Amino acid sequence: MNGARPTFTETLRQGWNAGRFISVGLDGEFGRLPGDLAAGDPARGVLLFHRRLIEATRDLAVAYKPQIAGYEQMGNDGFPLLRATIELVRELAPGIPVILDAKRADIGVTNQRYAHVAFDLYDADAITVHPYLGPEAMKPFTDRADKGVIVLCRTSNPGAGAYQDLIVEGRRLYQYIAEDVATTWNYNGNCGLVVGATYPNEIKAVRAAAPELPILVPGIGAQGGEVEATVQNGVAKSGGGLVLHASRSIMYAYEKHPDKSFADATRAEMTSLHAEIVAALSL
Amino acid sequence: MNGARPTFTETLRQGWNAGRFISVGLDGEFGRLPGDLAAGDPARGVLLFHRRLIEATRDLAVAYKPQIAGYEQMGNDGFPLLRATIELVRELAPGIPVILDAKRADIGVTNQRYAHVAFDLYDADAITVHPYLGPEAMKPFTDRADKGVIVLCRTSNPGAGAYQDLIVEGRRLYQYIAEDVATTWNYNGNCGLVVGATYPNEIKAVRAAAPELPILVPGIGAQGGEVEATVQNGVAKSGGGLVLHASRSIMYAYEKHPDKSFADATRAEMTSLHAEIVAALSL
Repeated sequence: MNGARPTFTETLRQGWNAGRFISVGLDGEFGRLPGDLAAGDPARGVLLFHRRLIEATRDLAVAYKPQIAGYEQMGNDGFPLLRATIELVRELAPGIPVILDAKRADIGVTNQRYAHVAFDLYDADAITVHPYLGPEAMKPFTDRADKGVIVLCRTSNPGAGAYQDLIVEGRRLYQYIAEDVATTWNYNGNCGLVVGATYPNEIKAVRAAAPELPILVPGIGAQGGEVEATVQNGVAKSGGGLVLHASRSIMYAYEKHPDKSFADATRAEMTSLHAEIVAALSL
Repeated sequence: MNGARPTFTETLRQGWNAGRFISVGLDGEFGRLPGDLAAGDPARGVLLFHRRLIEATRDLAVAYKPQIAGYEQMGNDGFPLLRATIELVRELAPGIPVILDAKRADIGVTNQRYAHVAFDLYDADAITVHPYLGPEAMKPFTDRADKGVIVLCRTSNPGAGAYQDLIVEGRRLYQYIAEDVATTWNYNGNCGLVVGATYPNEIKAVRAAAPELPILVPGIGAQGGEVEATVQNGVAKSGGGLVLHASRSIMYAYEKHPDKSFADATRAEMTSLHAEIVAALSL
């Protein structure tokens, strides 16, 4: 299906080499669309919104990350809209990978189905998954060497520490899992980790446990994460390693700049976040 | 939406009081349907298969459990087929709850969406979830007092122990989580645990950690779990507490008994499994 398309890992590396670090959300909601898209068919409005977002961000984005729950809540429209959104990335931003944020994980034939849905039906380049079932169960995902498997490690919710911070064998559970993903899961060199931006110290600990794995950091911008601390603690020795996900701050930039066109407003926010990241990298 | 419908917890208790313990899978696949359903529209064939399954099992089932990946792999047909399957349970087996096996878990607004999809759009009575994000993140599920939230605890895959068996504060992680679900998560009395049938000793440890929580046990029958050990180790003091899920052994009973009608073949397997459970309970 993917023919000569580069692997997820390769596309990320190409992005980092080109100085790109921002992941952009494609999570438009019918209730919050620009005025001229807010009437008419909801799925069509959301898709046009995604088109504008991709066009305004593709020169600086390292990845696009649709969150699947936003599509599932649309019922019958969910599947075709997510599929069309990913096709739109292929058309408008062909070198940029799509991370499907679905946080799946099960056992046996069920994982084979989830992997097939994410990688073949939706044609996503990577998926987020839960670690709880262990690396053996997750082989239907990790066996797909061309695809990325990004494992929840340390999340950004206030109660994230309930289990993630438990001490196992002298370190936190999330550190233990980070090490295990870097070794046991990563036999195809296609794994990454999710670490919330609100915890820069945890990002540092994860980077120490997994020196070269890609780290997806949700919550840059809208969730109040500190760009500077995140970048300095998370960057890999090779100079890459970070996928900094900004969802609402980019998607709804047009609401913040009512004087600007959609494209200009979105570009202004992208450029400003990009400059912050570049500044933090050169510190 | 649910009006006077009893809560998930109440329907389970009613089932146990009536001596019902078997959960039946509604996971028909187009490639494996009875001959007379194997031609024509796939979604229609699967739905008719589910109708026959419900009719042949409703006198002994304590729950129905569709696994969502089987529907998702059908693309556009997935959403309407799962919805129609759950409506069929309402119509044909109105007192029997539906557990949506989706293993969801995320944070913030994403969990609100997942809960809305499972409980409102699909109208499921309960959902399976991952524990990794902790009880605080899962409030959009646990706040729904009428709905069930069944937390992965000890799974049945060969490598399940990678993290679940790690020692934290003097016990296994899965025991720690079982205790925490019984206390922190269960403020509405609507939580349960998933424990694989292939590990009867682990079921015993979970029952000790969570004396009265419902335990959903996948893998009775097809996955080779021992009914007797599972029942004896898992039954609650109150005499209930077990939801023993049989998927392939019931769904494909008709293949095992080609001399019987679909209904008779399915009933024969249900009756035999039911008798095994009743015998184990009276030991």
